[in-house]
Amino acid sequence: MRGRFITFEGGEGAGKSTQISFLAAALEAQGLPVLQTREPGGSPGAEEIRGLLVRGEAGRWDGVSETLLLYAARRNHLQTVILPALEQGRWVLCDRFNDSTLAYQGYGRGLAMDWLDSLYQAVSEGLQPDLTLYIDVPVEVGLARAGRRGDDENRFEGLADSFHLKIRRGFQEIVRNNPDRCATIDGMGSVDEIRRVILETVLSRLPHHGR
Amino acid sequence: MRGRFITFEGGEGAGKSTQISFLAAALEAQGLPVLQTREPGGSPGAEEIRGLLVRGEAGRWDGVSETLLLYAARRNHLQTVILPALEQGRWVLCDRFNDSTLAYQGYGRGLAMDWLDSLYQAVSEGLQPDLTLYIDVPVEVGLARAGRRGDDENRFEGLADSFHLKIRRGFQEIVRNNPDRCATIDGMGSVDEIRRVILETVLSRLPHHGR
Ligand SMILES: Nc1ncnc2c1ncn2[C@@H]1O[C@H](COP(=O)(O)OP(=O)(O)O)[C@@H](O)[C@H]1O
Ligand SMILES: Nc1ncnc2c1ncn2[C@@H]1O[C@H](COP(=O)(O)OP(=O)(O)O)[C@@H](O)[C@H]1O
Ligand SMILES: [Mg+2]
Ligand SMILES: [Mg+2]
Repeated sequence: MRGRFITFEGGEGAGKSTQISFLAAALEAQGLPVLQTREPGGSPGAEEIRGLLVRGEAGRWDGVSETLLLYAARRNHLQTVILPALEQGRWVLCDRFNDSTLAYQGYGRGLAMDWLDSLYQAVSEGLQPDLTLYIDVPVEVGLARAGRRGDDENRFEGLADSFHLKIRRGFQEIVRNNPDRCATIDGMGSVDEIRRVILETVLSRLPHHGR
Repeated sequence: MRGRFITFEGGEGAGKSTQISFLAAALEAQGLPVLQTREPGGSPGAEEIRGLLVRGEAGRWDGVSETLLLYAARRNHLQTVILPALEQGRWVLCDRFNDSTLAYQGYGRGLAMDWLDSLYQAVSEGLQPDLTLYIDVPVEVGLARAGRRGDDENRFEGLADSFHLKIRRGFQEIVRNNPDRCATIDGMGSVDEIRRVILETVLSRLPHHGR
């Protein structure tokens, strides 16, 4: 049987990377084969493209170049990692996916949504996540959390608050427009509370029988 | 006054890189400001993308990823190098440009031409070369010349002869479909003969008055 494809979405510091690992462990504990991955990146080629995107100055790539690099990476990740894993029956958990491109490049940078949709169609051949968990937190909370994390991949964190606000509104609109695929997770609780809400959401939306 | 944009196209070993330098020198000798550049690459960001494309195994990127990387690089090159130089009045000579993508990814790898056209439109906003010099040589002649050159950027040279034949037919069709923009240069003469034919072609197609 084909595996399920679950994506984690949200702004900087929402708790995506924290929660994806908990969900991976919980599903594995139920006997499911899990693959945890991330975007941009997730395959050797796509990670090289990620390196071009996340390092260096904020103005290094204009919106069009940045978008084309993101979709080149997504194509490689889908073809070499995500699709083969789903075909082997694995549950694929991905930290950011196409909704991040819609939110950042579309709602944030103002690139045309229909152009982004046509690029997604070209790279995905129609595959959609079975479930998207959007973790919602106020911009200032997410940025404060991400600031404390202290890594070097901070190109987006340096952008203005108004940009992050557009991104949050964008994610919220994507969820409203795709209610069957997406669930909003309130990211303001404790790590443990959110962990439980996510597991309940996954088990009710994607019922399964373990191995 | 805006500068002119001249592209050199053709298969491996046709003589593009040899001839572009001669033309640059000849135009400079006439007092014209010249910028010589190349694709994929030509700007710091695009050269990094070129590095991903030209090194490594032939099967590393599928056609869709490869195409998106090429257009990401083209966008960066246009925005940061080609357009500013043309606006400063420089004559821009480019070693390969969009016709190479149409020939290799379209005619060669079979990607949809209308998808390539829509990507070119997105990255170029309608800019077309003022003149494209297509240097035509039989496949075996070009490959033999390129083989003697001995560099490490040989990902395309390793592909089958039938692939290179499709590329040559592709370039020939592009020239037939764009007679106002394109000129075919017979690449079988001596380096010096071809140098003179190219200079005559440029002076008759793009008359100018030097500086
Ligand atoms: N619910 C939470 N409450 C408080 N801090 C959190 C919570 N979830 C995550 N964090 C912390 O916030 C920071 C950002 O979390 P992370 O999972 O890396 O976010 P994201 O991947 O969405 O950017 C980390 O230091 C993490 O430990
Ligand atoms: N007209 C010509 N006759 C013979 N050899 C040539 C000619 N033009 C170029 N060459 C040689 O062929 C090789 C490939 O030429 P080059 O200009 O690098 O081709 P391209 O850039 O089109 O791949 C070089 O070693 C060059 O010196
Ligand atoms: Mg994260
Ligand atoms: Mg060359």
